[in-house]
Amino acid sequence: MKIDRMQAFSDGVYAILITILVLDFKVPDYQAGHLLLALFKQWPTMFAYIISFLYIGTIWLFHHDFFQTLKKTNASVNVINLVMLFSVTLIDFPTALVANTLISKNSADMQVAFIYYDFVALFISFTFAWLYTYVRKHPELTTMKANQKRFYAAIKYDPVRSVSIYGVAILMTFISIWVGAMLLLAGIIYHFIAYLRLSYSIRHVFIFGEGPDRRNK
Amino acid sequence: MKIDRMQAFSDGVYAILITILVLDFKVPDYQAGHLLLALFKQWPTMFAYIISFLYIGTIWLFHHDFFQTLKKTNASVNVINLVMLFSVTLIDFPTALVANTLISKNSADMQVAFIYYDFVALFISFTFAWLYTYVRKHPELTTMKANQKRFYAAIKYDPVRSVSIYGVAILMTFISIWVGAMLLLAGIIYHFIAYLRLSYSIRHVFIFGEGPDRRNK
Amino acid sequence: MKIDRMQAFSDGVYAILITILVLDFKVPDYQAGHLLLALFKQWPTMFAYIISFLYIGTIWLFHHDFFQTLKKTNASVNVINLVMLFSVTLIDFPTALVANTLISKNSADMQVAFIYYDFVALFISFTFAWLYTYVRKHPELTTMKANQKRFYAAIKYDPVRSVSIYGVAILMTFISIWVGAMLLLAGIIYHFIAYLRLSYSIRHVFIFGEGPDRRNK
Amino acid sequence: MKIDRMQAFSDGVYAILITILVLDFKVPDYQAGHLLLALFKQWPTMFAYIISFLYIGTIWLFHHDFFQTLKKTNASVNVINLVMLFSVTLIDFPTALVANTLISKNSADMQVAFIYYDFVALFISFTFAWLYTYVRKHPELTTMKANQKRFYAAIKYDPVRSVSIYGVAILMTFISIWVGAMLLLAGIIYHFIAYLRLSYSIRHVFIFGEGPDRRNK
Repeated sequence: MKIDRMQAFSDGVYAILITILVLDFKVPDYQAGHLLLALFKQWPTMFAYIISFLYIGTIWLFHHDFFQTLKKTNASVNVINLVMLFSVTLIDFPTALVANTLISKNSADMQVAFIYYDFVALFISFTFAWLYTYVRKHPELTTMKANQKRFYAAIKYDPVRSVSIYGVAILMTFISIWVGAMLLLAGIIYHFIAYLRLSYSIRHVFIFGEGPDRRNK
Repeated sequence: MKIDRMQAFSDGVYAILITILVLDFKVPDYQAGHLLLALFKQWPTMFAYIISFLYIGTIWLFHHDFFQTLKKTNASVNVINLVMLFSVTLIDFPTALVANTLISKNSADMQVAFIYYDFVALFISFTFAWLYTYVRKHPELTTMKANQKRFYAAIKYDPVRSVSIYGVAILMTFISIWVGAMLLLAGIIYHFIAYLRLSYSIRHVFIFGEGPDRRNK
Repeated sequence: MKIDRMQAFSDGVYAILITILVLDFKVPDYQAGHLLLALFKQWPTMFAYIISFLYIGTIWLFHHDFFQTLKKTNASVNVINLVMLFSVTLIDFPTALVANTLISKNSADMQVAFIYYDFVALFISFTFAWLYTYVRKHPELTTMKANQKRFYAAIKYDPVRSVSIYGVAILMTFISIWVGAMLLLAGIIYHFIAYLRLSYSIRHVFIFGEGPDRRNK
Repeated sequence: MKIDRMQAFSDGVYAILITILVLDFKVPDYQAGHLLLALFKQWPTMFAYIISFLYIGTIWLFHHDFFQTLKKTNASVNVINLVMLFSVTLIDFPTALVANTLISKNSADMQVAFIYYDFVALFISFTFAWLYTYVRKHPELTTMKANQKRFYAAIKYDPVRSVSIYGVAILMTFISIWVGAMLLLAGIIYHFIAYLRLSYSIRHVFIFGEGPDRRNK
């Protein structure tokens, strides 16, 4: 399997997923002349949309920069990648649930929706931890040589940290929905910051093999 | 027609199909405070989603690795490929039917839904059998040379076996829905195992022409 | 604008369009135990799906092989291509209308649905005629040299013939819906045959420039 | 991050977005025999579809030609691009709102729908202004050398002009919906003309680096 085509397929899934999120926006039922009010009541849909767009966008950037460090793939990486894509596609539904329960404002339902989202986020971070661990044990797949150890020393705890944040978010949501929601948000923002660090590491610290370097110029 | 672009188009169809499966998840109608229960009742949707995601993902991997052994395409391969893509897009609807009938629990309807899914799976396996047969008779399309015979000896019965499994699944569903459903599941898992074997064959047993090899390094 | 990326974008639109056609399949309302009957009543959805899938697939193959003869693009080709993609995306809706009116069986409505489909098909063929004419007048865009004249002599009337078939189909639908529907079907099958001829012409009659040829080997 | 893959991802989002616009066409509720009338009443859906298709198509051409002048990307460009894609995906919903309010004909609701569309258009133009400004300050990202100044002198005010047009459109919509709507339309047509100018500038005035040029031949 060529690494190029696997990335193209994955990019396709990310592009589709991030775009079909807009299908959550539905023309509301409203009385003639009261569209503005009806749209304002939809604010959670916009809010959930912004968060999930940022989240999927960040995961895509992550996925992208990480696969750039690989020079080939194998059946195991293909399967891990498929599980990862599966986990990411799950974001769509809890996004709609969070928006809906924020509109209907029932706390028990909001709790369920946030915990659902938390579990999906935890699952996604777990698949990244799995991929990092697998690739670290198979250095023959990467374009990095001596620097691989330092690279993984820098990033290896990122997925574990994410899993922990979402784990705590789940627990806290039982006590306070809003604290739990803040932790979920913090987790997503943490991903974004971790991406910037990963991107920096890849560009400035490591020497690449011929493949990606040739194209980058 | 360049083989690259045909693969890109096919990859696009697979990526879209695997992603729009998530549209089957719909916010359920529920009484305020009872979202959790409503979601648990949706378990067949999640179950059918997991199976169909695994199934389409496996077919994509298959399609991908197989086309990697081709160096060019012609009008016949284009038409077979289009029929194959057509057969795969049909998975979406019986996935929804299986989920729905598992929720409503009427045995006659479940039978119909499973047999529909079986027929689609049988059709997909048939298109693979068609493609294998065609390519075996046109060795000028492949990058394999002397090894082609051995390669096809290893894989040629895979689609026939799949067709048989689904054929038996259809018959058994008339006697027992659950035995039929188990056979359908077994067929999908068999695909996955067959993919791992195909992937192994391609990588370890055969010598490729210049095309794919150059990129794989 | 690189010709490669314009093709990639167009391929994306075709892949999405051909795949979202499946969203027309909706779980029917049915009484418990009568799913089979409800599905049989949906036969026009399957029928319209098969026709539109074949149609879009054929147009994609056409688009693809034709753009393979171009070595560069310009603002005019970009605009013509965008209009062409626009015309193709319109197929989705009359497909649903044809399916719906065949289910409800009102002749006046069927007439409307078929004529709508005819007009879209006529529009698509018109955009192909426009593209052929433009490219014929700008030989600097193509990879063909001396052979261009012969190439266009072979294919130039294809879009005009299509436009005529759909024009007659529209007129006939006022007299007999079924004769009109047969003509529409004939037009789509004609496209498919014309594609096979175009594909043959490109491969066997003409000498290509360096670009596509290098990749085809 | 390779510039190629970022463009591929962006192209994917544009292709999906422009194609799922067709999902706004829904089979109307109609009395048997009155489909034609029901379809005529849907004219605003077609109208809004044409405008948004033209708009997204133009933005894609813009995005495309602009990124062709870049030879590499960095984390900032990635983030700006993600915000830009986010802004463009927002077009889908106000398209549906404009169509719906034109059908129901309540002026207060039409005002809301047009202003929503205006704000999205203003946001999109703002992200282009942001990108232009960033790239102008980071000439190391582009393939242009001495000509960069002249290039930006020619195009730098385009996004500012767009922002102004949409700003005025918002204000005018409070006074007269139709004047506001005309301004929105004028803004979209202005984009199209600005694209033709940009495309001309890139092709005729500037000398590119090796990358894009090699492929253009």
